[in-house]
Amino acid sequence: MFRWLYYDSQYLKGHWFKKINSEGWKWAANDILHRMLFQTNKSVKWPVSPYSSYGNNILFDVDDLNNFMGTGNYFQTLNAHIVIGKGTRIARNVGIITTNHNIYNLDKHQEGKAVVLGQSCWIGMNSVILPGVILGDHTIVGAGAVVTHSYPDGNCIIAGNPAKLIKRLDGEMIEKECLDY
Amino acid sequence: MFRWLYYDSQYLKGHWFKKINSEGWKWAANDILHRMLFQTNKSVKWPVSPYSSYGNNILFDVDDLNNFMGTGNYFQTLNAHIVIGKGTRIARNVGIITTNHNIYNLDKHQEGKAVVLGQSCWIGMNSVILPGVILGDHTIVGAGAVVTHSYPDGNCIIAGNPAKLIKRLDGEMIEKECLDY
Amino acid sequence: MFRWLYYDSQYLKGHWFKKINSEGWKWAANDILHRMLFQTNKSVKWPVSPYSSYGNNILFDVDDLNNFMGTGNYFQTLNAHIVIGKGTRIARNVGIITTNHNIYNLDKHQEGKAVVLGQSCWIGMNSVILPGVILGDHTIVGAGAVVTHSYPDGNCIIAGNPAKLIKRLDGEMIEKECLDY
Repeated sequence: MFRWLYYDSQYLKGHWFKKINSEGWKWAANDILHRMLFQTNKSVKWPVSPYSSYGNNILFDVDDLNNFMGTGNYFQTLNAHIVIGKGTRIARNVGIITTNHNIYNLDKHQEGKAVVLGQSCWIGMNSVILPGVILGDHTIVGAGAVVTHSYPDGNCIIAGNPAKLIKRLDGEMIEKECLDY
Repeated sequence: MFRWLYYDSQYLKGHWFKKINSEGWKWAANDILHRMLFQTNKSVKWPVSPYSSYGNNILFDVDDLNNFMGTGNYFQTLNAHIVIGKGTRIARNVGIITTNHNIYNLDKHQEGKAVVLGQSCWIGMNSVILPGVILGDHTIVGAGAVVTHSYPDGNCIIAGNPAKLIKRLDGEMIEKECLDY
Repeated sequence: MFRWLYYDSQYLKGHWFKKINSEGWKWAANDILHRMLFQTNKSVKWPVSPYSSYGNNILFDVDDLNNFMGTGNYFQTLNAHIVIGKGTRIARNVGIITTNHNIYNLDKHQEGKAVVLGQSCWIGMNSVILPGVILGDHTIVGAGAVVTHSYPDGNCIIAGNPAKLIKRLDGEMIEKECLDY
């Protein structure tokens, strides 16, 4: 079956795999077909979109597997890992980069620095998160933002190129809204 | 035939479908093959690129079907529609979004707001148009722009993140040039 | 064999094609399969990614074929050529454009203007390079940058929308580092 070919079984669980016709199995079937025909993302241990590129060194909750189904994404984990907090949503064409080239010699890479996204963040379309960035819970990154430094406190909207603080979010509102569901 | 499988026949007309070897039929054949093999964009009633994602709630002229053939596009019509005026050109990796997540609870969406692009607009590569934006005829959106509010008068160039007015276009020049063809 | 179908043999040489199991042959096999099944990039004379779009009028060193393997790229060479200097790296979702639409009549294009990237440049993810731009050796273009004018002297970092000079690089450091390997 699928899992022995490409996947770790720990990723084929939870919300997206509850029923035989759940979305997750369709994603897996599509991904498997691409890996076999076109060699896309062959080292990644969970189902991913063939139209994006992913490193294998990513920590995430299996219920957030939807973040790996977009087109145009690039999650690079060459020398460090990416952490995606539970409930965080990542839009299309988003880059998350853990190591840049050495600016004086492109054949070398700089030391990797982990990227850590807190819980319930939302990373807007066409944005890029650069090495070492830490975003606290409930950080909203505007479309097209280039995030060059950390906002570890979270509860805020950042946007622009380079990204700047646009608005602080009301922590009480977040708690109240999040209790709703 | 194709149309009964996935498409509404109203979209298989005009410029792109004039001859048996017209571009439109090739787009359709390619799209059909992807829908069958990989389940891409299955709900959309006209031929689209498999390397982009489209909602079904989009109003456009069939002669502008080329706008759906790019890679990396995302036209989201979750709770509102997108209108694309005749002759408008949309580049690659462009997002058109009609509803954001609720910033206090990502599991909810905000109320949808239609995006309306006038006639003969040009939406540059890697730009994003946000919910509720109305752009008048002959609006040119620069590459990488993030359009957060409306420019309903058109006849202008907007660019940047967030997008700002860069230049007003000369209405007489536009009329003169457009009469040329 | 492959080359007679789609490719010029001059591109199937060098670093990426040294051994029978070298990366280049895998890229070619994948590309060929896409061209046959899905008609992608059929006019391009070297192996390319099916998830990007390329013009045929590009000058580059065969050892830099990796620049054509990304997703979401668009190298447009409608009325002018693109030159990519040796050792230059181009990230994903990057656009390189040689001709804009005529702003007064989108059905016409402006005169094409070549884009020239020097040696050992690095073009960051989601950036766009506009017609006529010349970047000197060792120019680093930040993620999400929109490059509207030239930096022919090189040895610098540019970033932002529109791109501006962020930092000059130390020429001696570059020479020293590049001698290392």
